[in-house]
Amino acid sequence: MGKRQLLLMSSSAVHGFGYLEHAESDLTSFLKHNSVQEVLFVPYALTDHDGYTERVGSVLRKLGFGCTGIHTAPDPVRAVQTAQAIYIGGGNTFLLLDTLYRRQLVGPIRERVLQHGVPYVGSSAGTNVATRTIQTTNDMPIVQPASFEALALVPFNINPHYLDPEPNGTHKGETRPERINQFHELNEAPVLGLAEGTALFVDGDRATLVGPQPAVPGTPYDARLFRKGEESVLYKVGSDLSFLLRE
Amino acid sequence: MGKRQLLLMSSSAVHGFGYLEHAESDLTSFLKHNSVQEVLFVPYALTDHDGYTERVGSVLRKLGFGCTGIHTAPDPVRAVQTAQAIYIGGGNTFLLLDTLYRRQLVGPIRERVLQHGVPYVGSSAGTNVATRTIQTTNDMPIVQPASFEALALVPFNINPHYLDPEPNGTHKGETRPERINQFHELNEAPVLGLAEGTALFVDGDRATLVGPQPAVPGTPYDARLFRKGEESVLYKVGSDLSFLLRE
Repeated sequence: MGKRQLLLMSSSAVHGFGYLEHAESDLTSFLKHNSVQEVLFVPYALTDHDGYTERVGSVLRKLGFGCTGIHTAPDPVRAVQTAQAIYIGGGNTFLLLDTLYRRQLVGPIRERVLQHGVPYVGSSAGTNVATRTIQTTNDMPIVQPASFEALALVPFNINPHYLDPEPNGTHKGETRPERINQFHELNEAPVLGLAEGTALFVDGDRATLVGPQPAVPGTPYDARLFRKGEESVLYKVGSDLSFLLRE
Repeated sequence: MGKRQLLLMSSSAVHGFGYLEHAESDLTSFLKHNSVQEVLFVPYALTDHDGYTERVGSVLRKLGFGCTGIHTAPDPVRAVQTAQAIYIGGGNTFLLLDTLYRRQLVGPIRERVLQHGVPYVGSSAGTNVATRTIQTTNDMPIVQPASFEALALVPFNINPHYLDPEPNGTHKGETRPERINQFHELNEAPVLGLAEGTALFVDGDRATLVGPQPAVPGTPYDARLFRKGEESVLYKVGSDLSFLLRE
């Protein structure tokens, strides 16, 4: 995995920032460090592929990078095989993974990223599908994919848009930690809850929590790591999380 | 469907009430009206079947009804076929539906309720599985069921624990209405968002919104109905929603 280059963002929208604004610095240095000039954008998590590609592309162009939507390619598999960088945006995780399976892109993306070191950027649903499985998504199952198994670019799960329960909340639906604990009643993999504004930067066998500081004003955490049968642990931006890649 | 008797609750817990306390009146009259003495409880949405059955059973006994957990029956299908009433509790919707499929209970429960008029009580996940599909659950997909299609005791979807977005919220994850709109980009069925504390009572071809009044203190809605391509509509407890059964 010495070539692996990943930037796995919790979200593209963060309170107090414009669209993707919180990530501009990390995104620019990630792509420049990898000598990327043109990004292949995957808009499959939403239904308006043109509009979504334009929204992300306008930010990328402002930062100095070109952007092409995979949906405009005559052969999406070939587009993946020739891409300088792959960016999968957020939306609905089930729709996204279902589309990746239907267009037979799961294997080709995985191979490009893990074997050839093609940089991968994910946001929200695009971060969910980069992990072992989509089993820790927050999204509604609006379509049924062939499998919940995903790209497995990292050997654990991520919960994007992570947030601790409100101390005085009156809603009785399961809290995020309760939902992740339900996952751990049946599954073993660690789950990294990434607060909005944070991202996991993976450089080969090293993983670092990145983002603006403080990532989410008013919250005491940037990420919370859940392991089966253990107390969860808080991490701040700058933390070395490489140990998660060795599990 | 002249025999159909359903009480589909949004949740078993409501702010300001003890466990199931908000539903005691509706639950008692529903079971008494149907001459039920013994309830078959289905605890499959959680992993602690004994503890869950005891928790619900203690409330039912206090109200004057007996309660047996289906997990203690030597033959669960036979238990369904001889049950006076079936009560499916909440927890994780994916785990629940997966277990119903694995134990080959989907067909038998559907037949008992729709053909023989056996009363059905659902709460949260138990309400999700009573509808067309589990595609409007709030739960994490911790296991993959064979299908998202559910008992289809009613021809629409329900979103339990429904809540409107907070007016001044800073979290940027999709709101509940945004998630339901994503469902409607790919699916046609109406989605009834049931606020905590409310339930849909179905008596044959009539459906009524029930619950304490106000169901959720401080909120202007008891239920919100979403239809594809239309503005959502608010309903108060007492509303006749029979039209949903004819779609």
